[in-house]
Amino acid sequence: MAYTLQQIADAIGATALGDTSLIVARVAEPASAGPDDLALLTNPKFAAGLAAGKARAAMLWEGADWEGMGLAGAIVSSRGRFALSGLSRIMDPGQHFGSGIHAMAVVDPTAEIGENVSIGPFAMVGARARIGANSIVGPNCSVGADATLGADCFLREQVSIGARATIGDRFIAQPGVRIASDGFSFVTPEKSGVEAARETLGDQGDIKSQTWARIHSLGSVTIGDDVEIGANSCIDCGTIRDTVIGNGVKMDNLVHIAHNVEIGDNTLLAGQVGIAGSTKIGKNVVFGGQCGVSDNITVGDNVIAGGGTKMMSKVPAGRVVLGYPAVKMETHLEMYKGLRRLPRLFEDVSALKAAISKTDSND
Amino acid sequence: MAYTLQQIADAIGATALGDTSLIVARVAEPASAGPDDLALLTNPKFAAGLAAGKARAAMLWEGADWEGMGLAGAIVSSRGRFALSGLSRIMDPGQHFGSGIHAMAVVDPTAEIGENVSIGPFAMVGARARIGANSIVGPNCSVGADATLGADCFLREQVSIGARATIGDRFIAQPGVRIASDGFSFVTPEKSGVEAARETLGDQGDIKSQTWARIHSLGSVTIGDDVEIGANSCIDCGTIRDTVIGNGVKMDNLVHIAHNVEIGDNTLLAGQVGIAGSTKIGKNVVFGGQCGVSDNITVGDNVIAGGGTKMMSKVPAGRVVLGYPAVKMETHLEMYKGLRRLPRLFEDVSALKAAISKTDSND
Amino acid sequence: MAYTLQQIADAIGATALGDTSLIVARVAEPASAGPDDLALLTNPKFAAGLAAGKARAAMLWEGADWEGMGLAGAIVSSRGRFALSGLSRIMDPGQHFGSGIHAMAVVDPTAEIGENVSIGPFAMVGARARIGANSIVGPNCSVGADATLGADCFLREQVSIGARATIGDRFIAQPGVRIASDGFSFVTPEKSGVEAARETLGDQGDIKSQTWARIHSLGSVTIGDDVEIGANSCIDCGTIRDTVIGNGVKMDNLVHIAHNVEIGDNTLLAGQVGIAGSTKIGKNVVFGGQCGVSDNITVGDNVIAGGGTKMMSKVPAGRVVLGYPAVKMETHLEMYKGLRRLPRLFEDVSALKAAISKTDSND
Repeated sequence: MAYTLQQIADAIGATALGDTSLIVARVAEPASAGPDDLALLTNPKFAAGLAAGKARAAMLWEGADWEGMGLAGAIVSSRGRFALSGLSRIMDPGQHFGSGIHAMAVVDPTAEIGENVSIGPFAMVGARARIGANSIVGPNCSVGADATLGADCFLREQVSIGARATIGDRFIAQPGVRIASDGFSFVTPEKSGVEAARETLGDQGDIKSQTWARIHSLGSVTIGDDVEIGANSCIDCGTIRDTVIGNGVKMDNLVHIAHNVEIGDNTLLAGQVGIAGSTKIGKNVVFGGQCGVSDNITVGDNVIAGGGTKMMSKVPAGRVVLGYPAVKMETHLEMYKGLRRLPRLFEDVSALKAAISKTDSND
Repeated sequence: MAYTLQQIADAIGATALGDTSLIVARVAEPASAGPDDLALLTNPKFAAGLAAGKARAAMLWEGADWEGMGLAGAIVSSRGRFALSGLSRIMDPGQHFGSGIHAMAVVDPTAEIGENVSIGPFAMVGARARIGANSIVGPNCSVGADATLGADCFLREQVSIGARATIGDRFIAQPGVRIASDGFSFVTPEKSGVEAARETLGDQGDIKSQTWARIHSLGSVTIGDDVEIGANSCIDCGTIRDTVIGNGVKMDNLVHIAHNVEIGDNTLLAGQVGIAGSTKIGKNVVFGGQCGVSDNITVGDNVIAGGGTKMMSKVPAGRVVLGYPAVKMETHLEMYKGLRRLPRLFEDVSALKAAISKTDSND
Repeated sequence: MAYTLQQIADAIGATALGDTSLIVARVAEPASAGPDDLALLTNPKFAAGLAAGKARAAMLWEGADWEGMGLAGAIVSSRGRFALSGLSRIMDPGQHFGSGIHAMAVVDPTAEIGENVSIGPFAMVGARARIGANSIVGPNCSVGADATLGADCFLREQVSIGARATIGDRFIAQPGVRIASDGFSFVTPEKSGVEAARETLGDQGDIKSQTWARIHSLGSVTIGDDVEIGANSCIDCGTIRDTVIGNGVKMDNLVHIAHNVEIGDNTLLAGQVGIAGSTKIGKNVVFGGQCGVSDNITVGDNVIAGGGTKMMSKVPAGRVVLGYPAVKMETHLEMYKGLRRLPRLFEDVSALKAAISKTDSND
């Protein structure tokens, strides 16, 4: 993966300056860059690091004085992080999974395997499953019966996809992803304490011991194109219809998506987010880490939730929220400010009571 | 899995009406139901959807006007969600794991495998492990040495069960479940900052750098009958004795159960719940998603905790709690209401101060 | 694993008393101990349990009246939990994984496997990977290309280590650990709503639908010596350089460590903790369960955070914090006390308003 500066600039839509034929083989932080590395310097405040390293070329912001920095060449772009996307794509050394179907893989004879598919050791592909062209199924993966995986997908090691899941093109699953685990849905023969407590906001009524009857998942999971799921994240099957993940959705590690959930296109969920059953999340939503959403509610398009936000009722489209329970971010800041000033308020009220009592006794 | 309406009604204890010999092969939502589907319609407010679909039969609430809906037949029950449990059980198409012991499984010759057990490809069963009749061990599962799994159990793919775990009948483990991982228990040679901070509620005293010595898990995990554990959930071994999960306990995905925890019968834990070490949870408890419980405390029988509740001290039996830290749900609602009205309170107190100061100067 | 009391005392640096030649084969709680068990009794308040069991020997606190308890012998130590560390280490019955490279393992011919390494069934080791002497790679594990694992490491079943990860000696990974999953890093072509909302603390500006471009991980993960990672925990690769975990770090189950994070030596993270991207955690830090830390911030050395704490801005060294957002533990207790007293404060202010209005009308 060695490229000239010009090749890189062409590939990522940036501009090469200086000695554009200079060859770089790796991307590095300025201070630790060697002479064959491309230093990555998108923020002027880290420019001093360049002197500490040995880079002859760097990726810089537009207008940066690359010659003044002592460089032989540079690549410049107006939005550094976006340019890094392209740069990192062409420089990614990958996982080195082999090509073809490994001798130690078990592929059902009725499965349909596309052209140029790679299936790793100890992976299994179930009956009637379909895997699209150029897809990679990593070591120790399971692809269940009747599951469909699109073209150009990449399953890292130890991913499992349950029966009847339908997944689009360019899907990426990090290690340990669980697609189409059974939904978590149980019901008591008679009304349960939880049902009563929800109706009364706190009173569960007469407490009876009851056992839980399982509601099986008859639906599976449908996932659009260009979706990525983080390590050890889990997406449950729907009860009657499929749980649905839109196009371009990105989820981080250890995310939990319950049965019947629908997630709109291009929504992004950070690590350890949990979405409870039958909840609908809009498009272009962004949740920080450890957010939670209650069951059977709606979160509108373009909602942004800060880390740790717990959404326990409907969130309107476009709102920026924070807190437990979730409120508008500005309301949260006000409430928090009030909380910090509470001890002083108690003192003020005590002083007022004393003053009043004095006034009264003065009467 | 095609049945007549009568067969279904008989199987699930409901009543078939109209053309009870009508055959249905699938359950569907009303609007998307085809002519061979059984539309599921347990809530009158979705009745309009039926007209949009092509169902000739539906599962309905008692007293529903199925003929007025243009149906040829119906199944009615007094508690629809409970009837759905039975219906979904008989209609579940399953995972299509094969029967018998796969040629690519590794089963220790000293393991005791019951009748009609299925062990999938790339699964391994350790020395002296016992697996009860009719149990299914999915692809890429590990069953450790001296572990016991009861009858009629179902391990989905990539489940691991550590050495010496004891599990009852009808156990269901979703993909990636970890039973009998080692407990997380470390101790410093001298009193640590955490021990000091707990004693003083905040002061960790002189800070010394210390390394952590590992306390190995000599216990394992004991799980009762009829337990289900969600995808990628983890149950750690006990230190001296086993961690204990009662009968009928149900856990959702990504739940964390630490060493020495005891969980009473029929308790239900939603996604991403975490229970810290040596804590005891009662029977018939229900925790919403992302709840947490501190170590070494007790949560009584029949406690209900809303999503995100963090229980940091003992919770008495029967209480309905919410919040961080957990308080009674009604107290939480009051506290929250107060918080929202705080800015107004600050204004009121300012006005009072101004009024008093005027009164005083009027004296 | 049967030892005399004297052998145990010598091995763990404690003192044997009475019949020091007495042989014990197992550690047990006092009430359930049999005649060949060593009862573990480090807290005098559980001494009554001893009479209920059949132990002839116990591990006790210094100065305990072992003869008065009717024991034939005892092991005493000044810090019982620390002594338990040594005791549990020598009594640990282990997982009984086999020795050598299993016939059903796939090891790339270019991998360098140290002396006395064990590789379990269905495990795979990639090209140029190096595994140090005496290390154990459990069943169904993946060790990626160019990864390095030190000596005396123990990977439980179904652990995955991605390409180019570098791990020190004595590493322990519980089942399902994910090392070197790809970082979760996406960028929009133009400024996103999240970037705007962060700058304005709540206003995301004009909402545009944008798709996410992936930033690939060019770095991997570097882990020091003596690290242990809990079941199903995930550590992502860095973007340009490696994510770094220091020596002696211990993590519990289901922990999420994002790209570029650095964690200092001897830091301990309890279950379900999440650390967002590019955040730096100091040395000797202790986080309770379900803590979260925002991206791009710093948590100083020796910080202690109670369970559920969400750190959203820099935390200075040595601080003991709690809450969402995190504040000093004592501040949190004050704020909480104030919250509980709020309803009374509202009443007081109402009474004051009434009194003032009466005073005014009396004028």
